[in-house]
Amino acid sequence: MESDQRKHLRELGVTIGRLPTGPLNAITDVPGVWVGQSTVLRDQPHIARTGVTVIMPRSGHIHEDFCVAGYHRFNGIGEMTGLPFLEETGLLTAPIVLTSTNHVGTAQSALVRYGAQHYGGFAYKLPVVAETWDGWLNEINAFPLTEVDVTTALELAGSGPVAEGNTGGGTGMICHDFKGGTGTSSRQVQVEGETYTVAALVQANYGDRHLLRVDGVPVGRILDKNRVPLPWDTPPESSSIIIVLATDAPLNALQCRKLAQRGAVGLARIGWIGDDGSGDLFIAFSTGNSYPPVAEGLISFRFLSAFQTGLLVEAAAEAVEEAILNALCMAETMTGYKGRTAFALPLDELVEIMHTYRALPG
Amino acid sequence: MESDQRKHLRELGVTIGRLPTGPLNAITDVPGVWVGQSTVLRDQPHIARTGVTVIMPRSGHIHEDFCVAGYHRFNGIGEMTGLPFLEETGLLTAPIVLTSTNHVGTAQSALVRYGAQHYGGFAYKLPVVAETWDGWLNEINAFPLTEVDVTTALELAGSGPVAEGNTGGGTGMICHDFKGGTGTSSRQVQVEGETYTVAALVQANYGDRHLLRVDGVPVGRILDKNRVPLPWDTPPESSSIIIVLATDAPLNALQCRKLAQRGAVGLARIGWIGDDGSGDLFIAFSTGNSYPPVAEGLISFRFLSAFQTGLLVEAAAEAVEEAILNALCMAETMTGYKGRTAFALPLDELVEIMHTYRALPG
Amino acid sequence: MESDQRKHLRELGVTIGRLPTGPLNAITDVPGVWVGQSTVLRDQPHIARTGVTVIMPRSGHIHEDFCVAGYHRFNGIGEMTGLPFLEETGLLTAPIVLTSTNHVGTAQSALVRYGAQHYGGFAYKLPVVAETWDGWLNEINAFPLTEVDVTTALELAGSGPVAEGNTGGGTGMICHDFKGGTGTSSRQVQVEGETYTVAALVQANYGDRHLLRVDGVPVGRILDKNRVPLPWDTPPESSSIIIVLATDAPLNALQCRKLAQRGAVGLARIGWIGDDGSGDLFIAFSTGNSYPPVAEGLISFRFLSAFQTGLLVEAAAEAVEEAILNALCMAETMTGYKGRTAFALPLDELVEIMHTYRALPG
Amino acid sequence: MESDQRKHLRELGVTIGRLPTGPLNAITDVPGVWVGQSTVLRDQPHIARTGVTVIMPRSGHIHEDFCVAGYHRFNGIGEMTGLPFLEETGLLTAPIVLTSTNHVGTAQSALVRYGAQHYGGFAYKLPVVAETWDGWLNEINAFPLTEVDVTTALELAGSGPVAEGNTGGGTGMICHDFKGGTGTSSRQVQVEGETYTVAALVQANYGDRHLLRVDGVPVGRILDKNRVPLPWDTPPESSSIIIVLATDAPLNALQCRKLAQRGAVGLARIGWIGDDGSGDLFIAFSTGNSYPPVAEGLISFRFLSAFQTGLLVEAAAEAVEEAILNALCMAETMTGYKGRTAFALPLDELVEIMHTYRALPG
Repeated sequence: MESDQRKHLRELGVTIGRLPTGPLNAITDVPGVWVGQSTVLRDQPHIARTGVTVIMPRSGHIHEDFCVAGYHRFNGIGEMTGLPFLEETGLLTAPIVLTSTNHVGTAQSALVRYGAQHYGGFAYKLPVVAETWDGWLNEINAFPLTEVDVTTALELAGSGPVAEGNTGGGTGMICHDFKGGTGTSSRQVQVEGETYTVAALVQANYGDRHLLRVDGVPVGRILDKNRVPLPWDTPPESSSIIIVLATDAPLNALQCRKLAQRGAVGLARIGWIGDDGSGDLFIAFSTGNSYPPVAEGLISFRFLSAFQTGLLVEAAAEAVEEAILNALCMAETMTGYKGRTAFALPLDELVEIMHTYRALPG
Repeated sequence: MESDQRKHLRELGVTIGRLPTGPLNAITDVPGVWVGQSTVLRDQPHIARTGVTVIMPRSGHIHEDFCVAGYHRFNGIGEMTGLPFLEETGLLTAPIVLTSTNHVGTAQSALVRYGAQHYGGFAYKLPVVAETWDGWLNEINAFPLTEVDVTTALELAGSGPVAEGNTGGGTGMICHDFKGGTGTSSRQVQVEGETYTVAALVQANYGDRHLLRVDGVPVGRILDKNRVPLPWDTPPESSSIIIVLATDAPLNALQCRKLAQRGAVGLARIGWIGDDGSGDLFIAFSTGNSYPPVAEGLISFRFLSAFQTGLLVEAAAEAVEEAILNALCMAETMTGYKGRTAFALPLDELVEIMHTYRALPG
Repeated sequence: MESDQRKHLRELGVTIGRLPTGPLNAITDVPGVWVGQSTVLRDQPHIARTGVTVIMPRSGHIHEDFCVAGYHRFNGIGEMTGLPFLEETGLLTAPIVLTSTNHVGTAQSALVRYGAQHYGGFAYKLPVVAETWDGWLNEINAFPLTEVDVTTALELAGSGPVAEGNTGGGTGMICHDFKGGTGTSSRQVQVEGETYTVAALVQANYGDRHLLRVDGVPVGRILDKNRVPLPWDTPPESSSIIIVLATDAPLNALQCRKLAQRGAVGLARIGWIGDDGSGDLFIAFSTGNSYPPVAEGLISFRFLSAFQTGLLVEAAAEAVEEAILNALCMAETMTGYKGRTAFALPLDELVEIMHTYRALPG
Repeated sequence: MESDQRKHLRELGVTIGRLPTGPLNAITDVPGVWVGQSTVLRDQPHIARTGVTVIMPRSGHIHEDFCVAGYHRFNGIGEMTGLPFLEETGLLTAPIVLTSTNHVGTAQSALVRYGAQHYGGFAYKLPVVAETWDGWLNEINAFPLTEVDVTTALELAGSGPVAEGNTGGGTGMICHDFKGGTGTSSRQVQVEGETYTVAALVQANYGDRHLLRVDGVPVGRILDKNRVPLPWDTPPESSSIIIVLATDAPLNALQCRKLAQRGAVGLARIGWIGDDGSGDLFIAFSTGNSYPPVAEGLISFRFLSAFQTGLLVEAAAEAVEEAILNALCMAETMTGYKGRTAFALPLDELVEIMHTYRALPG
């Protein structure tokens, strides 16, 4: 199984929804949205299977030009820092950082320090750092991630394709009892004559196998547990997903919140219910307007009417659904802490099932 | 098509999820939860295709024994009254009433008056009344519903099977471009050695046909538009669903809110995205503890731990999914205002599609 | 006491805060904000001491040009309808109506009907109607208010001075154990070189006498109970205040929510704690931008930065504090249901106390 | 001024409200609530005027017995971590830590590490860490606080009197343009025949001098600026207060949220408006019931009815008001970073003013 060549879902012929993707089918299809990742894989002195993923809007200049943003809690057994500021102002003022549960403080400190050193003033003071738990494969209580790893991810952030699967914050994650991780996808929609991109990046670490569906097909119920063993003793609180949605569609903060909330739609279509140990936290931001930290005079915004966002929420749902499936399709089988192995979703079987259930032509 | 014999989804052989239903597969499987409906069908002096549905916990004695309850807004272009009280106290103190958009005030007045006349004091003063818009089939601006219709529904409320489809508040509704209406379903779960029921009742009036899925199968994309015409000119703000969840599992108010929020899971599995004209408002209540209006000494509660609710949220998702499909399967083709016709979901074709896509055995 | 000539607080020489008022010291100082009131005073066939107050932005054209708005719940034992829509979109699309508890449904129906008859479509479909309880002086269970009274208030709405005290929805109210009612006040602030107005209108029906403070002076503790008897048997759930804040400062919806939340500041300064029977619900709207119901292209907004609203929230706090005190100062002693009398705050004594405590010069 | 002997407000003869205090007039009057503080005062290699305050319920065993808790955001330009978990479950599962803005990550990491090392499992994984900004007196960008300082505060936590003023997280704070810091106060109330304690601990770092009131007297407007110079160039985002409320009254999570919200009442009475740079974040918890992390069977709770909490919210308002004034009265003049001096509130003048304005006898 380890030799399995990993592919994106679309490379297997499976299409989610009806809307076209952007050129990269990634969150970096939204102009100015950069991704940077540090992946920490070590066996000495501790088994490290962890990392950090940075989503950096404004081509690295978010401290000079804020984005509007909104938040949704689907289930709250997890952490996302920066919420009082985000909910009060509807603004994102720093890169979003995704990492492992024990490294929230490290990542938060690294951001605050980076902002102080490079930009001064208020920069990066109240950042959004979110987490999922990778302690089954990663020796989490050894706290393997350092502030340098976070700074490295910040400095590596750039445009272009995003490495998916066992990368960055998603390195040690498990999803629907297969190897999970980082995934991304994008959609393009036309509203009022303009083309906008809506894109998702997820850190997927949730879910029971029997619930997994791919384009509606109950893949999880069909796959043979004997062939692809379950991870056996994961604690219930390990079960979480962070969803980041980005768009260049000009939205206000309430509309971003609505977009974030639609993470639940993509997630539910795949089969997640948000059970009681799950930290399922979603954030969405829009780059469609400029918001200087120190305004001279009024802020000028142009945004879609409250009654023109239907295609955007449909796009958000599709992008989230496909981003999670990309995480599953791209993540490779991994052996980690205590010799435990999380097996990759077997792509050959997936394709076979999709044919059988007529979700693929032929 | 009109001669089509309507059936519940399960009578067609289609099962949603893995959990067993209660004996009635209805919200009335939760002990003490009663339903009463008034259906208003008239052609003179106005075309009336409307009604009112009452969900009455505590066998008619909710004013003497409150229930804990929680609320979730999936999309807010709709009305649910009583929210400040519900969100402050986590209590439901009156029957829940579902009706048509223009009759919210009538229903609210009827409840306040009924409480004042029958029970006095604070009874029914701040009720929960929710609505969806039936103005395509119903001459809504003639305001055909009266306070008497509401009182009748209150007095008809009882246990036993619930009439689904074109009944009560769901009478004139349209869902996924088929005839919609009232639907219900229930699930039984075992937690800590006890058996609990989780059940849903929906007033389903949302959605585009192309999004409709049944147990994951993209039924809406497959059904022939020419054979089952679309309703042609429904305004976008007509698109809404009210979901009521009930359980006898002993929960606190925050856990009820979580249950309500899982309405989004069932809804998303069927294909709804909560678009920008949609009023998708959910409420859940628990009868598992007693809460007297005037307490002597402390209130005593026993409730499930925050970490024991996983099966309940799975049950909520399944019950909502099946309740909506029951509304679609039970609603009959209806002709109403301006001679417009909303066609029922064709059950023969549905079964055929489910076979073809291997979602039914054989 | 009944011959007491009622005066506004400022006419007594007492000034609240440091910011100047608008020309009318009323919510109608915000350009385009109209107020209309129906006052229902009858002794036959029932004792009616009630009414309805309408706050109509946009000079009567709110259905053609929405306002952004935000909501705050200080304590929730009360009703404010229209919240799902308001919280989803951040928009106010109909006049705000304040009335008595039992007349919420009547007022809601009257608005929906008025919108349907005069404007059609979506107009007034999901209005904001809020209430406080006047059942001590008013025979509330006779439901004395009719839809005609509401329509009359809508049609009477206009600019100019606002009748305060025992007027409109505030007619039968009691506040700090004195006669309460309707009050209003305004402030002008300069932000970034522009002058803006922030104004409040309240329906004040809350509070114990011992908590009352005027400009910090503990007036309630000092006033002689024997001279001004307490209303004796008001039920605890009678205790509520609705606060409406309006401004022409260009704000977004989150900033309106912040403004609404500052109602708590003015209220707390006077002495209210929001006890457990209180329905203390606040709404704020801004007329500073145009928001057409059907947008062609994008909505264009100019608004203050998140970091430029300090003076506005200070103005909101001052206006609320003075509006409540104006309600107390303008309301006359009233005798109503069951011969009960609520006594007016004695203004001579108030002035004397303010002198003694050096809150007035001389 | 530096020789000024600092005293608690009550030692000056000033009483806030009508309810009696507990024996210590401190948050430690709530049985089992411990406080621990590390104060970091150094001039080399950097000017450090900072620290950390720990509020530890359950006599150090919060990881074995959770408390219900609720949160309120009065203004959100600040950080409080742990909110998704707190809002989802209504539970507090770790000590609350208050510190300086730049040390949130350090404190969060220290807690997670401490929990992992001492208790394992889920302990302290999602803690509540809150901050206010001390960068005017403290060289904040030198990040002077270490994880050891946090662990020390955890281990020093105990019952008994609380050191107020320039202590712990409050060390470098400024309030109403005087030296601010840590303050505490408590109240006792009788509900249904039982005596309960409600207590507050604040980290006070907000406000303009002209707004300061003491028991309603406009002290800030009266005090001579020439005698007590203003801190001159504090940035607007420095302005914040964290309020922690504790009670042994048996409440549910919604009632804790209500208690937290009443922080705004105490704060408003003193004169704060929550301006646009302010991070005014409040949390309240109840020790009145037991909530084991791993439940066998149901959780058993006894709590006050929703209609019995009036005295508790009055107590919360009083305790917050006095806790802030205690911070002001106990904090000593401090000189710090860049030679800046924040002057203490002059107590002699305060007493004189209180006499003049008849807020003190004699």
